Amino acid sequence: MKLIRFGEAGREEPGVLLPDGRMMDASGEFSDFDEGFFGSGGLESLAEWVADGCPGATEVDPMSRLGPPIDRPSKLVCVGKNYLEHAKELGEGIPSEPTLFMKATSAWSGPYDDVITPRGSTKLDYEVELAVVIGQTASYVDEADALSYIAGFSSFCDYSERAFQKEMGGQWMKGKSADTFAPMGPWLVTADEVADPQGLRLWCKVNDEYRQNSWTGDMMFSVRQIISYISRFMTLLPGDVIATGTPSGVAMGMNPPKYLQCGDFVECGVEGLGKIRQRVVAPH
Amino acid sequence: MKLIRFGEAGREEPGVLLPDGRMMDASGEFSDFDEGFFGSGGLESLAEWVADGCPGATEVDPMSRLGPPIDRPSKLVCVGKNYLEHAKELGEGIPSEPTLFMKATSAWSGPYDDVITPRGSTKLDYEVELAVVIGQTASYVDEADALSYIAGFSSFCDYSERAFQKEMGGQWMKGKSADTFAPMGPWLVTADEVADPQGLRLWCKVNDEYRQNSWTGDMMFSVRQIISYISRFMTLLPGDVIATGTPSGVAMGMNPPKYLQCGDFVECGVEGLGKIRQRVVAPH
Repeated sequence: MKLIRFGEAGREEPGVLLPDGRMMDASGEFSDFDEGFFGSGGLESLAEWVADGCPGATEVDPMSRLGPPIDRPSKLVCVGKNYLEHAKELGEGIPSEPTLFMKATSAWSGPYDDVITPRGSTKLDYEVELAVVIGQTASYVDEADALSYIAGFSSFCDYSERAFQKEMGGQWMKGKSADTFAPMGPWLVTADEVADPQGLRLWCKVNDEYRQNSWTGDMMFSVRQIISYISRFMTLLPGDVIATGTPSGVAMGMNPPKYLQCGDFVECGVEGLGKIRQRVVAPH
Repeated sequence: MKLIRFGEAGREEPGVLLPDGRMMDASGEFSDFDEGFFGSGGLESLAEWVADGCPGATEVDPMSRLGPPIDRPSKLVCVGKNYLEHAKELGEGIPSEPTLFMKATSAWSGPYDDVITPRGSTKLDYEVELAVVIGQTASYVDEADALSYIAGFSSFCDYSERAFQKEMGGQWMKGKSADTFAPMGPWLVTADEVADPQGLRLWCKVNDEYRQNSWTGDMMFSVRQIISYISRFMTLLPGDVIATGTPSGVAMGMNPPKYLQCGDFVECGVEGLGKIRQRVVAPH
């Protein structure tokens, strides 16, 4: 199944994208794709409703804005330096265990929304990532069981302001948390439709030029390992999002760096999960 | 006003503590003290309801469990090394601008709940802090206006597992985010009742021995500066929580360190905001 959310930012309604390309409004049956939905068997109910032919549903206007395919999560946990070539391009050593950080969830954004340059930004960077959405409460999860905690997968871009992240003291989250820095979508593809999360191509283009082009098999710590590892340090809740790290090719790794500028177009995608397409705009 | 939440963990109901010591159930009028409440003038409505004598309300059973006085926030932003003597005891230099990090909000906990030692923990530490609850959306806020964005204040303890935080690579949040590591309460004291957030004594006792004993006037970056600073990097939402840093006296700063052990009692308080009192218990 492919879950979508459509409508005005902050007031999205839930829906599904059918195999024939139609988008169906599920808001008559489901209030939202959120912690309560995932935590109470919502995906199973949705699958039944779709199998029944989406009774009572109307078609979504194809011109509707698509929001992120799930509600703002309770947390957004990210893995840093999880692809070997990316860790090398940063020149900061190879981690021996997963590097974790958080993005503020107020950065939550839709797949085609503008990326707003934060005030004072000089080093705006992209990072395409495979996002994992958690389907049930996960605490001290074994690696062997970890994949069963996944509701689905999405394309994600971990936008980063490198001066804020690296040159202002302390922890990375200063450069990771501006509004619109966490676009996800266009769909949440349920886990049953992704045969192997380590077998997916992912890429990022800026103004149609490939900047990142890799596959998830190059992760140093697999999705299975990441979920198990994070769950040792905190409880993952239904609807929480894990961004599993980015491959090489980020602007900061280039010589000279090619940071994003206002007017640039960014396209990020993960195989089978659809594309994020965004314009970089001036500070508000 | 003093806001409380009472009842079973995760199912708390909102209420108020009156000056005469009675706790009144506000759940007939207000669904919860959450983002929607603070963002839609809820505090003003609550004040009117209290001024009217809490019409229709029953008294809360004094034996009820108290939860954190507001619903789990969308984010929990913390300031590190914000008291000079604490920065010195850590021996990692004095920050020239605020050090920020996040705790997972799944650590959200009540003021008298047990602190659960995470599995594998060897270096469990306490940090008493003044917590600020945001009352309205704050983005690019001037220092001069910053205090007007505050809904109220609470006592807070930023529990930390120092081995997870410092010895496992990457960012601090690994040691900051275990379940029960973010107790707040017992009350949210509204901003009008706190004459000067930089004029409050705060302390932490372990088994009745003072470990921390300082005042908020020793912050290097004031509440006003912190709110303004954070709002440059992310949008603070109504109901979000800022933990403003801890004074010296943490276990890690001692020689030898006196980390918390199962069975210890921790008491943390900020002048006028009430006390957190908790027992440290074994891993679950």
